[in-house]
Amino acid sequence: MIGRLNHVAIATSDLAKAAAVYRDQLGAEVSAPVDLPEHGVTVVFVALPNTKIELLQPLGEHSPIAAFLEKNPSGGMHHLCYEVEDVEAAAAYLKSQGARVLGEIKIGAHGKPVLFLHPKDFGGVLIELEQA
Amino acid sequence: MIGRLNHVAIATSDLAKAAAVYRDQLGAEVSAPVDLPEHGVTVVFVALPNTKIELLQPLGEHSPIAAFLEKNPSGGMHHLCYEVEDVEAAAAYLKSQGARVLGEIKIGAHGKPVLFLHPKDFGGVLIELEQA
Repeated sequence: MIGRLNHVAIATSDLAKAAAVYRDQLGAEVSAPVDLPEHGVTVVFVALPNTKIELLQPLGEHSPIAAFLEKNPSGGMHHLCYEVEDVEAAAAYLKSQGARVLGEIKIGAHGKPVLFLHPKDFGGVLIELEQA
Repeated sequence: MIGRLNHVAIATSDLAKAAAVYRDQLGAEVSAPVDLPEHGVTVVFVALPNTKIELLQPLGEHSPIAAFLEKNPSGGMHHLCYEVEDVEAAAAYLKSQGARVLGEIKIGAHGKPVLFLHPKDFGGVLIELEQA
């Protein structure tokens, strides 16, 4: 079912610093910050030859990454995003297998349908599925 | 400096279960478990079209992932591995930038020189650099 690793999301409370580390120390290609108010984050994209890293900083109140940063003030890996052909079919299959799907299918940060899966059912890792 | 994302490492105390989730629920291609006693882990490789996931379970005493699993009993993302052309040059440059390199350059799980970087200097994320 899962295809490419679309991105690894890293939450940070200091996006400028995290972006500078990836640009200046790790020598990666780093985008300008992009505000995504409907997702409650500001994001910097780190382009790698085979996938990307998304550096996320909370934006506004009720950011979905605020609780994570309270528990992990230094930041850290927040979720993995795998591509699937059909998010709706993936949700139906995973539910039939007893896995917990978090909330409803939504339009994600890349304008495509996405779904989040409960970390407790996936080895402690929050997983996003994005329709490719 | 950094090139491809070589792998995402996920630590688990139940490798059989984690492998079954990736194989049966997420429909990925999953290897048989491989013991790496010199690295203190048993690993299952999850092959994705553009990178791989490594599911790690402690092997023997003094496993490098034992402390992580004590703090995170449900498991979770342990480190990211980026490829570099020259690990020694990378270490020298990063040290000159004030970043903390953990220990010495070693031969990693894929038979290539590797280096670990201090999470505190990299946004809370443990980073492995592997010579490509």
